[in-house]
Amino acid sequence: MVRVGVIGYGYWGPNLVRNFADVPETRVVSVSDTRIDRLRVAERRYPGISLTTDYRELITNPDVDAVAISTPVSTHFQLAIDALRAGKHVLVEKPLTTSSVEAECLIEEADRRRLTLMVHHTFVYTGAVRKIKDLVAGGRLGDIYYYDSTRINLGLFQHDVDVIWDLAVHDLAIMDFVLPARPCAVAATGISHVEGGTENIAYLTAFFSDSIIAHLNVNWLSPVKVRRTLIGGSKQMIVYDDMEVSEKVRVYDKGITVENGSEAAYKMLVNYRAGDVYAPALDVTEALKLEVQHFARCIETGSKPLTHGESGLRVVRMLEAATRSMKSRGRLVELEADRDVEVLSASV
Amino acid sequence: MVRVGVIGYGYWGPNLVRNFADVPETRVVSVSDTRIDRLRVAERRYPGISLTTDYRELITNPDVDAVAISTPVSTHFQLAIDALRAGKHVLVEKPLTTSSVEAECLIEEADRRRLTLMVHHTFVYTGAVRKIKDLVAGGRLGDIYYYDSTRINLGLFQHDVDVIWDLAVHDLAIMDFVLPARPCAVAATGISHVEGGTENIAYLTAFFSDSIIAHLNVNWLSPVKVRRTLIGGSKQMIVYDDMEVSEKVRVYDKGITVENGSEAAYKMLVNYRAGDVYAPALDVTEALKLEVQHFARCIETGSKPLTHGESGLRVVRMLEAATRSMKSRGRLVELEADRDVEVLSASV
Amino acid sequence: MVRVGVIGYGYWGPNLVRNFADVPETRVVSVSDTRIDRLRVAERRYPGISLTTDYRELITNPDVDAVAISTPVSTHFQLAIDALRAGKHVLVEKPLTTSSVEAECLIEEADRRRLTLMVHHTFVYTGAVRKIKDLVAGGRLGDIYYYDSTRINLGLFQHDVDVIWDLAVHDLAIMDFVLPARPCAVAATGISHVEGGTENIAYLTAFFSDSIIAHLNVNWLSPVKVRRTLIGGSKQMIVYDDMEVSEKVRVYDKGITVENGSEAAYKMLVNYRAGDVYAPALDVTEALKLEVQHFARCIETGSKPLTHGESGLRVVRMLEAATRSMKSRGRLVELEADRDVEVLSASV
Amino acid sequence: MVRVGVIGYGYWGPNLVRNFADVPETRVVSVSDTRIDRLRVAERRYPGISLTTDYRELITNPDVDAVAISTPVSTHFQLAIDALRAGKHVLVEKPLTTSSVEAECLIEEADRRRLTLMVHHTFVYTGAVRKIKDLVAGGRLGDIYYYDSTRINLGLFQHDVDVIWDLAVHDLAIMDFVLPARPCAVAATGISHVEGGTENIAYLTAFFSDSIIAHLNVNWLSPVKVRRTLIGGSKQMIVYDDMEVSEKVRVYDKGITVENGSEAAYKMLVNYRAGDVYAPALDVTEALKLEVQHFARCIETGSKPLTHGESGLRVVRMLEAATRSMKSRGRLVELEADRDVEVLSASV
Repeated sequence: MVRVGVIGYGYWGPNLVRNFADVPETRVVSVSDTRIDRLRVAERRYPGISLTTDYRELITNPDVDAVAISTPVSTHFQLAIDALRAGKHVLVEKPLTTSSVEAECLIEEADRRRLTLMVHHTFVYTGAVRKIKDLVAGGRLGDIYYYDSTRINLGLFQHDVDVIWDLAVHDLAIMDFVLPARPCAVAATGISHVEGGTENIAYLTAFFSDSIIAHLNVNWLSPVKVRRTLIGGSKQMIVYDDMEVSEKVRVYDKGITVENGSEAAYKMLVNYRAGDVYAPALDVTEALKLEVQHFARCIETGSKPLTHGESGLRVVRMLEAATRSMKSRGRLVELEADRDVEVLSASV
Repeated sequence: MVRVGVIGYGYWGPNLVRNFADVPETRVVSVSDTRIDRLRVAERRYPGISLTTDYRELITNPDVDAVAISTPVSTHFQLAIDALRAGKHVLVEKPLTTSSVEAECLIEEADRRRLTLMVHHTFVYTGAVRKIKDLVAGGRLGDIYYYDSTRINLGLFQHDVDVIWDLAVHDLAIMDFVLPARPCAVAATGISHVEGGTENIAYLTAFFSDSIIAHLNVNWLSPVKVRRTLIGGSKQMIVYDDMEVSEKVRVYDKGITVENGSEAAYKMLVNYRAGDVYAPALDVTEALKLEVQHFARCIETGSKPLTHGESGLRVVRMLEAATRSMKSRGRLVELEADRDVEVLSASV
Repeated sequence: MVRVGVIGYGYWGPNLVRNFADVPETRVVSVSDTRIDRLRVAERRYPGISLTTDYRELITNPDVDAVAISTPVSTHFQLAIDALRAGKHVLVEKPLTTSSVEAECLIEEADRRRLTLMVHHTFVYTGAVRKIKDLVAGGRLGDIYYYDSTRINLGLFQHDVDVIWDLAVHDLAIMDFVLPARPCAVAATGISHVEGGTENIAYLTAFFSDSIIAHLNVNWLSPVKVRRTLIGGSKQMIVYDDMEVSEKVRVYDKGITVENGSEAAYKMLVNYRAGDVYAPALDVTEALKLEVQHFARCIETGSKPLTHGESGLRVVRMLEAATRSMKSRGRLVELEADRDVEVLSASV
Repeated sequence: MVRVGVIGYGYWGPNLVRNFADVPETRVVSVSDTRIDRLRVAERRYPGISLTTDYRELITNPDVDAVAISTPVSTHFQLAIDALRAGKHVLVEKPLTTSSVEAECLIEEADRRRLTLMVHHTFVYTGAVRKIKDLVAGGRLGDIYYYDSTRINLGLFQHDVDVIWDLAVHDLAIMDFVLPARPCAVAATGISHVEGGTENIAYLTAFFSDSIIAHLNVNWLSPVKVRRTLIGGSKQMIVYDDMEVSEKVRVYDKGITVENGSEAAYKMLVNYRAGDVYAPALDVTEALKLEVQHFARCIETGSKPLTHGESGLRVVRMLEAATRSMKSRGRLVELEADRDVEVLSASV
């Protein structure tokens, strides 16, 4: 039984608390928020838990084994490093930090103290993304050709981060989980339509050393909500539409084959295959429930989370590169080679 | 009555011939194609017209007033310049030419000879795009914020042009027609998955001197066919989905308003409006029919076509810039300032 | 402030309790359920309220002003009549009772005691249905021609009622609210695919004295979930698709006009109009919240609820007639003329 | 090589002529129509064929082996019987005749003369319906539970037939082809909204001796076009949506299982299965092309067409029964037992 304290009871905090309260592996001991009215809401729902406006009280509470951080991104680093130094395991809302330097610092601190550091890349725990991971890892798609995502809607304009840090972060986390390779360079373009505001529309292309290309289209100013990702392979292709009530993942047995006959010197022959389409049944367990259980298990066994701080770091590096590229209207920004980290298996 | 000769009876040629034959303003006098079997097909359908494998015969035919060219892009310039020099009015399949130098040359030749030079930007003549033009020009959208198009499907891989010249050309032609401003720079990224082939996936961002951004996502390797364009404005927004059987154009009374109160020093206040959605009834006349009638009227009155060679030139310049940018993985390529050409009115 | 007791804490009960607890007009005083484990769940969430396995305790509780009943339909009558006799106002889950005799009895009891009797026809309080009511009442559709609804999905097979009592009841309640006339006869057909079970697929046609026809298609054995209603009028037509995330209500400016010229003796001339389509913005307040507030207001002012027991009675009469017709494979069953009850206004 | 004469060059006639002209198995020899202007259109497109305003000339033409009839339904019988008596094979537009007596008469005449009599149930020859037939016949769906079709759109109001004879005829023909059993009774309801007109909205339920039910919803006054059929089985279920550009047929591995344990005396236990969904690749050959080739092959080999006159007769019997039921607002009308006709195999 892991005893959890949750910092931040705003938008996501209540969902975290509810799941930590519901599963048998964890118990909610304390909640902190700087806003008294939010604490009152928590108190009404969970009488008996400790409440505080000072997060320091929560992280030094000896009844707390692990801390979940659900606050604005600019505060993540300070809260997380303090919690680690107080000897607590830490789960941090995405993106992990505002810079890769901070993320590296958290990883080192957690490693040194043998504490679990996990980032809340929540899509990784959905039935849809886990199914996609299985299909890709199992070779069903063949060689991966592209990852193309559209993630657009009206609002919510953020004050401290741009649309890439707010929306593209989800795709970068999914890519980090499902793709067999990692990007080596990024180019991004974007625009702000609010004076003094951050970019509210942006387009990001990620390049890989092999034949993969990834592209993300994110927009806070779209009249329609779209959450659609295409993953193309040499054998099969996936359309993942998160707005579908059911059949979120469709697998298309379609593609091309290229003939290189004697004529090929003059004319390339591309043939098209159009086979069946199928939509696999998906596990519909709430992602957050699986995630808090996975967090508890990693703490108890010392195993590495699927969304360890290192995946948080890789995502932050891509976000940093994208922001840099966007400031120079699409200049290519190379990514440093990763520390050697294996791609983790899909078993949650 | 304009007497027309059509060069090229492959994919689009038969549609051109059918429309020239059907409307009272034009008559088909001659068809040329290098392939005998294609000429036989034309003959069976239109007994009595002159047929030839040598286009020179067609353009020197004194019974021909105007020539329509529906051949691979690499041949456009030679055929068009020869036809103009033979004193014929010319309608050319998109893209107008393979280079802006060629396009400029055609425009000059046509101007000097007072001949009509028109490019087949067919979407400009659809009920959907004409309605969008009306909405934008009438100020219904307010300031334009973005144009974002996805034009993807499986096939047909082209041998001589990349996916931008094949698919993005449609969006560039639509943008040239409906947007109140013209791009000043372009950045594009792409990839080829066929050895020795051209790029089959590409992403293009166009920048404007004001707050507009345009983005095109084109792909020959998508398992699903998508033809969807979003046009966002400060007042209203449009979703144009060409795959819809009806309601291709939807207008959303949605957007944001930004308050600049005293608090604004600390915190920007973005409010959201979500009003009605409406789908205007569209003229469903076949675009090609309107286009051939417009061509005939321009020839007879000497007026300038909606899709004059100059719009063809502007589109070719953007295509050239995009290809150059793509070769350097997204480097920004500035567009030369246009010659001073007014944006034409929407009245077909 | 109305003090409420809720009987039944199963599927809908928790939603009722949550809404009664959230709005300032009401307070939850007591919950009863025969199942101890359900009471425990209620206790964890709402410490301090009175809990009992004996509903009699709840309805005789002097702190309770009004009782909400959320139990299987076979128990509605007994619970409601007891509550009314104990002097409590009553809100009953749909359908009101298992027979019209019982419904009449409840209405009389409530009338005699000047107590509020309301039935939980929840769709009446949704933004979509209220908008439809406004459009119909405002004459936007012209003469109503038909109401055609498909309400199908997989499960939940009910033990005590057939699919008409479970699903068509929603449409009958909506029809009772939005249509300008009431059916005079019903024909229904259906089938059971489970031995000893009730009908799991059924089709109901309702006839009116004028040119309206209504048709309901309900099915517990559909692989896809559909919630779609068409309402056709002489001027405009509505498509109400409750599975849409937004744009649930679309209004089509389409229809026919019939010419009766001199030729009409030989040949009727039907012309078609195809104008704009629009989707009005809808109030997205939770229906149940509006409903519990409306219940409280009716209790305090003595005004008649939009979904008074009489609408519950009219719906039960149609359900009875449908069941009778279905047993004889579609024989027409006449409905008794209603007591003279005005159609209530749409203002919630 | 079968030499064909086509009577009627209105809406469908040109498609018939085009296909008879295109395939190598047949040749078009003659076209007749009472309207000179229609003959002129045919002449322009097919110079050299014989044209006549008198169908008698066509059916007595010794160069004609087979006659295709594409005229209003009220004329089918006279034209077909005359053609058969002149020794010609006959293909008739659906519905075969206006009465079962007429249909029986045609079948007898064709049998006696050993001529091919085929009805144009065109959906039977589509890739979608043939795939459905294969799935049903192969046992993939298990026991069939229901066939539920919605076939609605705006227009075209017919003068001589009601909406059942115009639209439901398609579903009755598909049911006749794909279902393993035949209806024994029919109930139908409907309404007319045009004075003196036929029913423009109708609902038809067909009963079978076993657990199958079929239901058809047809409407000429719908603002949206819907062509959707659900076929439910004990193992799998099909959704056939003819408005989809691709994936017209989807197979759902969903259903229920009923447990009959010791508890079952008190409570039936229905469990739900929700497995994968798949959309098989479909043959996209034009149905009419396959149909005319099949007609030619049956003539040459003497084999029985998939859509022999007998299927036309069965469909007409259901139409007659539906009309009779509709006139009495849904009264059940029993169908005479069929002559013993095997269900034909799906191999086209």
